[in-house]
Amino acid sequence: MISVGIVGGTGYTGVELLRILLRHPKAQVRVLTSRTEAGKPVADMFPNLRGHTDLQFSDLNIDALKECDVVFFATPHGVAMQHAKDLIAAGTKVIDLAADFRLQNLEQFEKWYGMEHACPDVLKDSVYGLTELNREKIKQAQVIGNPGCYPTTVQLGLAPLLKSAQALIETKNIIIDAKSGVSGAGRKASLGMIYSENADNFKAYGVAGHRHHPEIVEALENIAGKKDVFEGLLFVPHLVPMIRGMLSTIYVDLTEAGKQTALQALYENFYANEKFVDVMPANSSPETRSVRGANELRIALYKPQPNKLIILAAQDNLVKGASGQAVQNMNLMFGFNEDEGLQGIGLLP
Amino acid sequence: MISVGIVGGTGYTGVELLRILLRHPKAQVRVLTSRTEAGKPVADMFPNLRGHTDLQFSDLNIDALKECDVVFFATPHGVAMQHAKDLIAAGTKVIDLAADFRLQNLEQFEKWYGMEHACPDVLKDSVYGLTELNREKIKQAQVIGNPGCYPTTVQLGLAPLLKSAQALIETKNIIIDAKSGVSGAGRKASLGMIYSENADNFKAYGVAGHRHHPEIVEALENIAGKKDVFEGLLFVPHLVPMIRGMLSTIYVDLTEAGKQTALQALYENFYANEKFVDVMPANSSPETRSVRGANELRIALYKPQPNKLIILAAQDNLVKGASGQAVQNMNLMFGFNEDEGLQGIGLLP
Amino acid sequence: MISVGIVGGTGYTGVELLRILLRHPKAQVRVLTSRTEAGKPVADMFPNLRGHTDLQFSDLNIDALKECDVVFFATPHGVAMQHAKDLIAAGTKVIDLAADFRLQNLEQFEKWYGMEHACPDVLKDSVYGLTELNREKIKQAQVIGNPGCYPTTVQLGLAPLLKSAQALIETKNIIIDAKSGVSGAGRKASLGMIYSENADNFKAYGVAGHRHHPEIVEALENIAGKKDVFEGLLFVPHLVPMIRGMLSTIYVDLTEAGKQTALQALYENFYANEKFVDVMPANSSPETRSVRGANELRIALYKPQPNKLIILAAQDNLVKGASGQAVQNMNLMFGFNEDEGLQGIGLLP
Amino acid sequence: MISVGIVGGTGYTGVELLRILLRHPKAQVRVLTSRTEAGKPVADMFPNLRGHTDLQFSDLNIDALKECDVVFFATPHGVAMQHAKDLIAAGTKVIDLAADFRLQNLEQFEKWYGMEHACPDVLKDSVYGLTELNREKIKQAQVIGNPGCYPTTVQLGLAPLLKSAQALIETKNIIIDAKSGVSGAGRKASLGMIYSENADNFKAYGVAGHRHHPEIVEALENIAGKKDVFEGLLFVPHLVPMIRGMLSTIYVDLTEAGKQTALQALYENFYANEKFVDVMPANSSPETRSVRGANELRIALYKPQPNKLIILAAQDNLVKGASGQAVQNMNLMFGFNEDEGLQGIGLLP
Repeated sequence: MISVGIVGGTGYTGVELLRILLRHPKAQVRVLTSRTEAGKPVADMFPNLRGHTDLQFSDLNIDALKECDVVFFATPHGVAMQHAKDLIAAGTKVIDLAADFRLQNLEQFEKWYGMEHACPDVLKDSVYGLTELNREKIKQAQVIGNPGCYPTTVQLGLAPLLKSAQALIETKNIIIDAKSGVSGAGRKASLGMIYSENADNFKAYGVAGHRHHPEIVEALENIAGKKDVFEGLLFVPHLVPMIRGMLSTIYVDLTEAGKQTALQALYENFYANEKFVDVMPANSSPETRSVRGANELRIALYKPQPNKLIILAAQDNLVKGASGQAVQNMNLMFGFNEDEGLQGIGLLP
Repeated sequence: MISVGIVGGTGYTGVELLRILLRHPKAQVRVLTSRTEAGKPVADMFPNLRGHTDLQFSDLNIDALKECDVVFFATPHGVAMQHAKDLIAAGTKVIDLAADFRLQNLEQFEKWYGMEHACPDVLKDSVYGLTELNREKIKQAQVIGNPGCYPTTVQLGLAPLLKSAQALIETKNIIIDAKSGVSGAGRKASLGMIYSENADNFKAYGVAGHRHHPEIVEALENIAGKKDVFEGLLFVPHLVPMIRGMLSTIYVDLTEAGKQTALQALYENFYANEKFVDVMPANSSPETRSVRGANELRIALYKPQPNKLIILAAQDNLVKGASGQAVQNMNLMFGFNEDEGLQGIGLLP
Repeated sequence: MISVGIVGGTGYTGVELLRILLRHPKAQVRVLTSRTEAGKPVADMFPNLRGHTDLQFSDLNIDALKECDVVFFATPHGVAMQHAKDLIAAGTKVIDLAADFRLQNLEQFEKWYGMEHACPDVLKDSVYGLTELNREKIKQAQVIGNPGCYPTTVQLGLAPLLKSAQALIETKNIIIDAKSGVSGAGRKASLGMIYSENADNFKAYGVAGHRHHPEIVEALENIAGKKDVFEGLLFVPHLVPMIRGMLSTIYVDLTEAGKQTALQALYENFYANEKFVDVMPANSSPETRSVRGANELRIALYKPQPNKLIILAAQDNLVKGASGQAVQNMNLMFGFNEDEGLQGIGLLP
Repeated sequence: MISVGIVGGTGYTGVELLRILLRHPKAQVRVLTSRTEAGKPVADMFPNLRGHTDLQFSDLNIDALKECDVVFFATPHGVAMQHAKDLIAAGTKVIDLAADFRLQNLEQFEKWYGMEHACPDVLKDSVYGLTELNREKIKQAQVIGNPGCYPTTVQLGLAPLLKSAQALIETKNIIIDAKSGVSGAGRKASLGMIYSENADNFKAYGVAGHRHHPEIVEALENIAGKKDVFEGLLFVPHLVPMIRGMLSTIYVDLTEAGKQTALQALYENFYANEKFVDVMPANSSPETRSVRGANELRIALYKPQPNKLIILAAQDNLVKGASGQAVQNMNLMFGFNEDEGLQGIGLLP
């Protein structure tokens, strides 16, 4: 049984971590911090937890965190990097659900997040936690940068193509039309997020620039093992009037080699041993509700023209897109079965 | 053509007033104020208005307002009462959509709204703007206290019983189980109002006390012409995951006289000449969507037991429950047809 | 490990049974029947189950069902009673999620369900499966009539009052204003259930008579141990634009004894040892989302007047209101821990 | 005052026609037919119309329709073409909201709609009713094929580029990622459309082929005045959990000429005199709710790369995407102001 700390557990990734970890057979949450809610039972804030835990929020006490085996940061960007060094020095592993350890490119980090990085050396040794693609490094990692929700769909959606020995797609011409439920924006009191502004409505947002764009590009470069080949990539996120769920519709142009490849088989083989990535039969339509609450990502392929491929990738943005993947990473880091605590079936309807 | 001012047009009652008044053939909005948005085109805040008006928010300038024939206050409680005296002195009529002129009982006002009343003398001369029940007084009024949304459903739902020559119901035993869409809580940045906290959820709120309770009691006393007979009244509001719409389910016990009365006919006669109150056939179910965007209130009656009556009353909380009724009152005050600008049909689906 | 059959697994109670039972450590679903879908993998119909089961629908084969230790009927009313006798003769226990074994009063059954009962003798020996109230009988039962969703909230909401040695409430004057998510109406192709008719809408339905009314009355009589004392009970269900969730707002008049009783303590004591019934602190508001997907019912009490009590009772209509309670009953019938397979925490947001 | 007939008024385009036409100052609905609902007051089916009309559904009587000045067909595909010849012979104009007169290519019509065309000669003389692009022909038309909802967004979104003297975009490489509210699927009793299958969910559908694809291609060819240049076009529709609203996100590659062109100005000029097409400032995001219930289409442009353009086009699928545009066409056909009856402002929130 490992002991777990969660810093900043008042957002949706925090309550999801708790929902999962309170039923995890090999982990116990010992510390839960909040700047604003210290002393309050977490079940008072998140009524789904009533009867399942007596945990209270506490002030952030670095010594208490150091006694944990692992600390999750479910905080705004910029918090984890203040504490990571201390924690790993004490032998405590760190999993950050914010962006502090997602981008190796410091210039991009500073541009998009508006702050200097506090520990570039720790960043250099940290591992990007897209579990299926970085499994071996994650097992050895001290610090994990847990991927953004959109980037998770894009990487898992494109990896089989980019990892292929041959160049199967025109990397300069990728279009990602992505759609997310409102919980992706977090749990914040802001006018733009209130019910009456979002229900029965649909819109694009962040078209002129979204923080997940540089993360997607850097991650795809790492997967492809090539720099500067994704400049033409377009990423357009949209807001869907639903709580959870994310679907990315990805359009790629196939090369001659790509046209000749049996792509459905390529994907099925690539993910044949993955518990949490499901390649659906050709011409299926992955629905976000089919993975509601589950740590799963579903992919379907369409080939509408000989030289075009459409990839649909669906997940629950709070689970495989955030807290579920974080626990998946924790399982690897501590040698547990990768699906420990993550076997729950999605809630449909 | 009268000239209209709107103070505080950044909330939902404000944008509803604009939606209605920009199409009103006899009124023109000349002034629109906002403490925080002065200089901003209103269509930038409310994109439904793009192309329909060039109005900009301005700072509250009392002289500009005095040049209007009527000023609507779509502000928080406590603002209208600061300006009403000045305005009526200048011959400008006032319609307050907040609570400043709803309660004649100053003690109750101070208790529930946490402020002293700024102009008890103006309050005394003001008229409570439940149009169908106070029509003649409204025609003469200088200041209107526009009713709360819940109280509108309750008063119109019970008036035929209370206005009857005979005592038809046990006034001490009225139960109002009311349900409202989220827009009823206004347009405010607060955690409790964000999409992911309200969608796919249902709850009661304010059970231990809601500001509309004293308004309901005072209003029913005025309708019945009797004091201290509604102490037993229960009022339990609930929050429905929808933008607009309100339904009150009202339970009353019939007296012997009530049991003998043809209640469906009583209601149909009472509202026979009302354009905006619709008594549906017995055993109908008024749906909130049937009045979405329309200045209508629908009533249906059930008599499940010889001595019990259930009254269902549905409206759009932002229209008949707020801005539509305010314009209906304006029409009366200026001698226009009561339905001028209010003939729009509800949006279904 | 017991073997389980599910008859009629194409509705929402069916998929919920599967979601729960596929993770149950002591039960294995062996047979799953559907008149219309025989041969189809269940995961093709319910995509949340992809990767979690290879089960296919089969035709209803009574011999295959007889080999199961228990068979759930997630069918329309009238199916279970055709097969119950055969099954129990073969030693197979039966849990019916429809109404065949809910009402002991045959006249009422025939009136409300429009069919003659096929096996009154089996009915007589069957047990009504409101787990917390009938635990000992359920342990011995061969046939369970699993309660309706609304009746579950009402019984658990009123039981502490009715089981008290003293008469605490006026039983002739109970009002139940109930609200349900749309999944309560099942999974049927009907105009009234389509998205655009239900979203952003609220209405009452079944006000003139609902099948759960006689079930509520019979069940309350059994709890109270008195006949003919609930005739005045009013039950008004409403439809909420959400998928899952149910809240009943129950209004009762207190007797003199009731006024003197510490009711919050009474409820807390009554349910002190119950895992799935949560008496919240006074003046709480149970939200349906707090139990989304969880086998829990939450209760809160308000005493707005010395002689009035308001009881709020919330649950997930598909879990504690249907499939979860059915598994809870199964656990008792086979001597398992009552919460086996039912420990999942609700999904919030 | 012209007299109007509506055939098949039991769907959502039917009730929208009524909502608009019952307030149209120059048109009066005289005949409303339904195969299944003859004799029923339309307000019984569509409660928003209560108090606004006494119209009843009648059987389809061709003689009664011939006495109308214009007949709208709000029917399934294949009905209007049975009656158009008779009606125009009698001097009655026809506006079909289904697909009978959308495609001039008979082969495509038969392939996608599975029926032979009943009157190819009438089809040849009919006019495609995309109002802004075919205004002069519409004024003279006897028969209008009212455009599909998706094709309306695509045509208005691309017309300024395609009508330009220079080739501004690579026509072979257009991607349309489109999203629609559920009402776009009509008012039909089908499992796939029920509330609990669509709420809190997002998915693509019809990826392998959608009937609006050939309509889009034929229409764009007509706009561009070129055949066979749009084969590479991809069209992927998605279903959004909202009642009304449609947003198309269109991705195009710019030619050298396109790169040199001031595209924002091009669009603003192209639509400068259009009442119902709104080119928003660069980098705006048109929200579907901003046109809820209004006959408006909003466009915004983004240029994320020197050679890429993203066009966002939003409308209410039932208004500008169907019934509103149909009335707009009627207004032109009868010499009325184009916006007669269509000035209503959208409902926000």
